Amino acid sequence: MRSERGLASRRGVIGAVAGAAAALPAGIARAAGNPQNQPPHLPEWGRSLGPGVIEETYGTRSRHETAVRRYVPWLTPDRVSSVSFTPLAEMHGIITPSGLHFERHHGGVPDIDPADYRLMIHGMVERPLIFTLEDLKRMPQVSRIHFIECPANGGMEWRGAQMSGVQFTHGMLSCSEWTGVPLKLLLAQAGLRPGASWLLAEGGDASHMTRSVPLAKALDDAIIAYGQNGEAVRPQQGYPVRLVLPGYEGNMWVKWLRRIELGDRPWFSRWETRTYTDLMPDGLSRQFTFVNEVNSVITYPCPEKPLQGRPGFVEISGLAWSGAGRITRVDVSVDGGDNWRTAELQDPVLPKALTRFRIPWEWREGQSAFLQSRAMDETGRVQPSITALRAARGTESIYHKNSIHTWLVERDGTVVNVQIDA
Amino acid sequence: MRSERGLASRRGVIGAVAGAAAALPAGIARAAGNPQNQPPHLPEWGRSLGPGVIEETYGTRSRHETAVRRYVPWLTPDRVSSVSFTPLAEMHGIITPSGLHFERHHGGVPDIDPADYRLMIHGMVERPLIFTLEDLKRMPQVSRIHFIECPANGGMEWRGAQMSGVQFTHGMLSCSEWTGVPLKLLLAQAGLRPGASWLLAEGGDASHMTRSVPLAKALDDAIIAYGQNGEAVRPQQGYPVRLVLPGYEGNMWVKWLRRIELGDRPWFSRWETRTYTDLMPDGLSRQFTFVNEVNSVITYPCPEKPLQGRPGFVEISGLAWSGAGRITRVDVSVDGGDNWRTAELQDPVLPKALTRFRIPWEWREGQSAFLQSRAMDETGRVQPSITALRAARGTESIYHKNSIHTWLVERDGTVVNVQIDA
Repeated sequence: MRSERGLASRRGVIGAVAGAAAALPAGIARAAGNPQNQPPHLPEWGRSLGPGVIEETYGTRSRHETAVRRYVPWLTPDRVSSVSFTPLAEMHGIITPSGLHFERHHGGVPDIDPADYRLMIHGMVERPLIFTLEDLKRMPQVSRIHFIECPANGGMEWRGAQMSGVQFTHGMLSCSEWTGVPLKLLLAQAGLRPGASWLLAEGGDASHMTRSVPLAKALDDAIIAYGQNGEAVRPQQGYPVRLVLPGYEGNMWVKWLRRIELGDRPWFSRWETRTYTDLMPDGLSRQFTFVNEVNSVITYPCPEKPLQGRPGFVEISGLAWSGAGRITRVDVSVDGGDNWRTAELQDPVLPKALTRFRIPWEWREGQSAFLQSRAMDETGRVQPSITALRAARGTESIYHKNSIHTWLVERDGTVVNVQIDA
Repeated sequence: MRSERGLASRRGVIGAVAGAAAALPAGIARAAGNPQNQPPHLPEWGRSLGPGVIEETYGTRSRHETAVRRYVPWLTPDRVSSVSFTPLAEMHGIITPSGLHFERHHGGVPDIDPADYRLMIHGMVERPLIFTLEDLKRMPQVSRIHFIECPANGGMEWRGAQMSGVQFTHGMLSCSEWTGVPLKLLLAQAGLRPGASWLLAEGGDASHMTRSVPLAKALDDAIIAYGQNGEAVRPQQGYPVRLVLPGYEGNMWVKWLRRIELGDRPWFSRWETRTYTDLMPDGLSRQFTFVNEVNSVITYPCPEKPLQGRPGFVEISGLAWSGAGRITRVDVSVDGGDNWRTAELQDPVLPKALTRFRIPWEWREGQSAFLQSRAMDETGRVQPSITALRAARGTESIYHKNSIHTWLVERDGTVVNVQIDA
């Protein structure tokens, strides 16, 4: 594909965000501060005792880090049916801190008393069952590190580069260690009736999110999860129980899970017809685009973490993921796709989990560059270019945009979201 | 070893905690609650909108989970030089949520302004250097999932079973994804002078914790860490920067790291002579017991999570770890060591990280049992019995107790901390 690209065309920027230079987060100033707290002085915090263990004792982050936030007031004035974004530029490694996990709610966050929590399994089963939370916790357990991504992640970029930073182009993406009972064990207890081939998962919140899931997925790696990063699932992520469907689009990971109904066909609920379907150029919808396909993004540098005043060594770093399995390779280009080098993948590389990649680069002040990453997974899937993706799918959809993403590093080190007509 | 054990001796309980039955955490009642919120009724949280995305938007846990806490008021009245314990009975998987990470402070928690943070490297180096936090973040990065354990974990158990639950016998143990710059890269920049073979790490808090570290460890896998579970290191864990020494005892992972001095011998500071040395029966101290050796504990069932009223299937679950490398096998006994079965290890099994093990068991009401786990690591190390450990090391130490731990399941399902004279 590379040889087919004309230089002029490849350099034709078809979308860019004006005024995208983002400020460094407050409190991460480079060389400011109080000289009296710097060498050779003993800083004030080394001269007196600090607060000790506190009775509330559920630890919190430093007050100097509060600029790192997932809520974006200008983007989501409606807080009940609302969204927040993980600040990927500030993240390290592959685990998303639960306090910064992205959110998408359709009826707000319900306050569920775990003593009243019940999960019902009914429909085409031999024995309809109701489980308490304690019932679920007594069953065999599994823990898995998996990413979750809203299918609308990057959705505003189908028609051009519109968002000012990686928090908005890719921030509906998080990764946690999920713990719970394999769904197949619950289904075995209920007993499947002949012909059962689909299930409906319904949330217990006021929006009653309902999604159809193929039975094969439920019998594969689906988890009824009550644990997230070692503790109880957070309320914003479905406390006390959510459905975990590794690799499937986040909307299907039904939160505040209330019931599972077995059937012999999909339900075509509002949440899989009016929304969460991919509109094609001919006006029809693609049916069943459950898997979030192979994708990647560079998180450093990025608009929120530019290079101004930082010539020299740059470790380009980013995240890759695939709903189909393990990431096997990430290539990085600094010249918009002319040349690619293979990045290093940070162990552990886990299936359907975020994978951190890194590659060294030397940036000279006055040098502009088009940074791209291109991920491949163990099924052989490769990230397409935006041009190839549009050729196949048009620009009417807001879902499943997984094309190669481009950051333009300008001569002064500013980083801007652009699209290249490749 | 098993054949040498007399039944009477093995069954001779040499230590037990009276009245150790712990209450279930509040809010996890089994079948209480409000029937109006249970099937067939639509619960109240499904009938009205909940709060949406909030502006502060650093997520918190459910108000129903606040009984899960690390602080133990009766144990640590002194809050400044104080300790808190991870509630292992409530943990899932291998990641410890940062809010429940165990703490050990010797001068309280300093409030460090990241703009004023400096790391100094000096002593036997060619070029003494001072790094800002931004300097550190611009260098090549590594992320690793590693456990950290206070060497005094279980220290009160050398002379007998004294603690009432797993939070106290083993809770100075946590596991996070740590991110930072490899220490060896900083040392390469400073340039080692001939003969440099040790370094001193000093904390910036008021206690100025100082520990000697062999240079070989610094050149191996030591990390100058600013990231913990995806975000900034928490203040209680050393914000903005702590030393990470995978597999080494937690006290050496100096928090609020201020300087690293290179030298040609250990410093024998207060923190490695008066404290954090293992006292032997002959009155001498073992020198340099840096590695936390292979260890394991069953976290379900345990005193905090007993089996009362829960006959039938039990998935025994626990954690294993070794400062020397990967866990290769965990055997579990329900009869105090007569018979062992090999447990399943949850992927991923990472070097110097917590490893979750699980094995099914059938418990009949009226049946007492002595539950034990015995871990092995890739170096061939095996957890010793408490008797073997005492024979080698006496009972004067409070550090590095890694012997096989026993929970007595009483006939009614109560679980008690005991020691078996094996």
